[in-house]
Amino acid sequence: MEPLAPHSTIGMLGGGQLGRMATLVAKRLGYNVVTLEPAPNSPCGQVADNQLVAAYDDPAALDELARRCDVVTYEFENVPSASVERLTAAGVPVYPGARLLDVAQNRLREKRFARQLGLKVADFQAVTSRTELEQAIERIGFPAILKTTHGGYDGKGQFVLNTAAEANRAFETLQGRELIWEQRVEFVKELSVICARNRLGKVVIYPAAETIHVNHVLDTSLAPARVAGPVQAEAQRIAHVLAEAFELVGVCGIEMFLLPDDTILINEIAPRPHNSGHHTIESCVCSQFEQQVRAVCGLPLGSVELTSPAVMVNLLGTGRGNQLAGLADLLAIPNLHLHLYGKAEAKAGRKMGHLTVRRDDVEEALEVALEARQMLSWQ
Amino acid sequence: MEPLAPHSTIGMLGGGQLGRMATLVAKRLGYNVVTLEPAPNSPCGQVADNQLVAAYDDPAALDELARRCDVVTYEFENVPSASVERLTAAGVPVYPGARLLDVAQNRLREKRFARQLGLKVADFQAVTSRTELEQAIERIGFPAILKTTHGGYDGKGQFVLNTAAEANRAFETLQGRELIWEQRVEFVKELSVICARNRLGKVVIYPAAETIHVNHVLDTSLAPARVAGPVQAEAQRIAHVLAEAFELVGVCGIEMFLLPDDTILINEIAPRPHNSGHHTIESCVCSQFEQQVRAVCGLPLGSVELTSPAVMVNLLGTGRGNQLAGLADLLAIPNLHLHLYGKAEAKAGRKMGHLTVRRDDVEEALEVALEARQMLSWQ
Repeated sequence: MEPLAPHSTIGMLGGGQLGRMATLVAKRLGYNVVTLEPAPNSPCGQVADNQLVAAYDDPAALDELARRCDVVTYEFENVPSASVERLTAAGVPVYPGARLLDVAQNRLREKRFARQLGLKVADFQAVTSRTELEQAIERIGFPAILKTTHGGYDGKGQFVLNTAAEANRAFETLQGRELIWEQRVEFVKELSVICARNRLGKVVIYPAAETIHVNHVLDTSLAPARVAGPVQAEAQRIAHVLAEAFELVGVCGIEMFLLPDDTILINEIAPRPHNSGHHTIESCVCSQFEQQVRAVCGLPLGSVELTSPAVMVNLLGTGRGNQLAGLADLLAIPNLHLHLYGKAEAKAGRKMGHLTVRRDDVEEALEVALEARQMLSWQ
Repeated sequence: MEPLAPHSTIGMLGGGQLGRMATLVAKRLGYNVVTLEPAPNSPCGQVADNQLVAAYDDPAALDELARRCDVVTYEFENVPSASVERLTAAGVPVYPGARLLDVAQNRLREKRFARQLGLKVADFQAVTSRTELEQAIERIGFPAILKTTHGGYDGKGQFVLNTAAEANRAFETLQGRELIWEQRVEFVKELSVICARNRLGKVVIYPAAETIHVNHVLDTSLAPARVAGPVQAEAQRIAHVLAEAFELVGVCGIEMFLLPDDTILINEIAPRPHNSGHHTIESCVCSQFEQQVRAVCGLPLGSVELTSPAVMVNLLGTGRGNQLAGLADLLAIPNLHLHLYGKAEAKAGRKMGHLTVRRDDVEEALEVALEARQMLSWQ
């Protein structure tokens, strides 16, 4: 199992910022990158050697990707399984494996998989009929969340429910799709753990980060999480169990809930680098994106050591303009690292970039990062 | 003096690894990059949005660069001054300024400029005739170096001289070009200081690195230099004086000789990021390449704090093959960062990449870096 030689080509399914940041690392390590993404001039396409502008399931584009690439990975979970099969049949390995993708694409399978491993999740139930809806109301009750099992991210395709009337309305909106009813748990914090595993089976686990969501979208990630040692250790253990069970080759982000009694529930699994791990670019010896490149290229994984506490905050568009003002003030802040994703239109809620602040103390980093973000505005 | 907005385009004259590493930073900060470089598929062109494949003095290409770019910088010192003038006349600022370029392109002007500032250089003399050659032998004597005043780098176009016979032979080989006779000094160490200055006149100086050359080519850079505090301070002071005198806008690398009595002589000035500063990518809060992008885009400069000692070693081609073997062993070393420049042919002596090792102790970093490099071979 020789590592891929420099000048080999990595295929990237998906052209977003996750692919962009992985590509910047791949270039540093001497690899070429071709991305397949329907939207032209994508964040990843802007830094890759080439972008194939086509649908993710376009047969001709997939065949061209297979012809040009030595290995393929992806940067979003909703990759059509037929695309993975077509690439694999053409002789190009696609990482992470099909098993993880299969599980991560479906919230029901995800939760069942976790339970089979002895890991904990919030109570849940499949809802495909009004009868099952009523069973869920009866058995699990409120508060709850009704979600599609497939597709949807950043809170899209899901409803928070507190009453039977809300449940019925949500069901009517979503019906016809496979749904999952999830108990809405009262958590103390949300945690996120990034793990990586390579082809040799080596697993590395980053320190758990603490995440703060706003409107169901990740807003802030603090590393390390402000939790006691045993909680940190347990979060990492859970990630380790999952990485091995998935036979992961690549990077995986696991979102978790920390309950008041220190129980940790698995919330969601992303079979790719995760927004909560962007801080690793500056705060860790080897970033989550370098781990992804190393893993899929058959190289040893790097160190996950956190060299200093760090806080990352996302920069979202507001829809009020596409020009980012305030950069000069922002960049005068020491130990602040800015990342912009090259997206032309700063639509409301769109992830346009992020910034990471490193400090000796995570509380101080949080304060600086939040103040820093307020210096910016879209005009 | 507003900073350049994200999505603005930076023009890069030169397509080598220095442009490549600056481009990777520019992309992270949301800028576009167009490079002008005659060799297709250049290291910089591979990561830039576009490469204009044309000579550095091609009028049509320069006009296109001016049309597409908001600012232009360069990554090598032998940029034709007519090209800078043409871009400037087209209304596009070119940084660093013409003054630095004018001085840095000519070894005689460089040394005279330094002397005028009260800084020290090895004794030197212009040699344009055999009479002047004899004067130089008489007045400065041996050992000496005879160099062309313009062009040449990494030891090209220069001769080390110990006898009058060698001097005559070198003069015959080089004559017809403007030459400089330099006293060859016995130095204890070579030092290199990277400095940056932005449009607002803010200057930052990185800690001096200690450099080791092999066959006149930089081989190893240790940061910080293993010198006493006052020597470190004096090296930084010299760089500060030069950055201000040049009215630098960008990054400048200054190579120096440390003599046995702690005197520091200026050897060469590079009006761009310098090989000796590649370690800053991982070892400093803000790298020399990010400073370059920030400076030319009118942004505040970042912190030059060295967060840990680091040693960088170059990876040169050998001419014995273009495939780099040994990567898996190399990347198993913790806190080692690999950079490959995307060059297809590993010709003997060609800079193909570098690696940087960070450790708590610079001696240990040196040992690990040198051992690490031995794991690699071109096949």
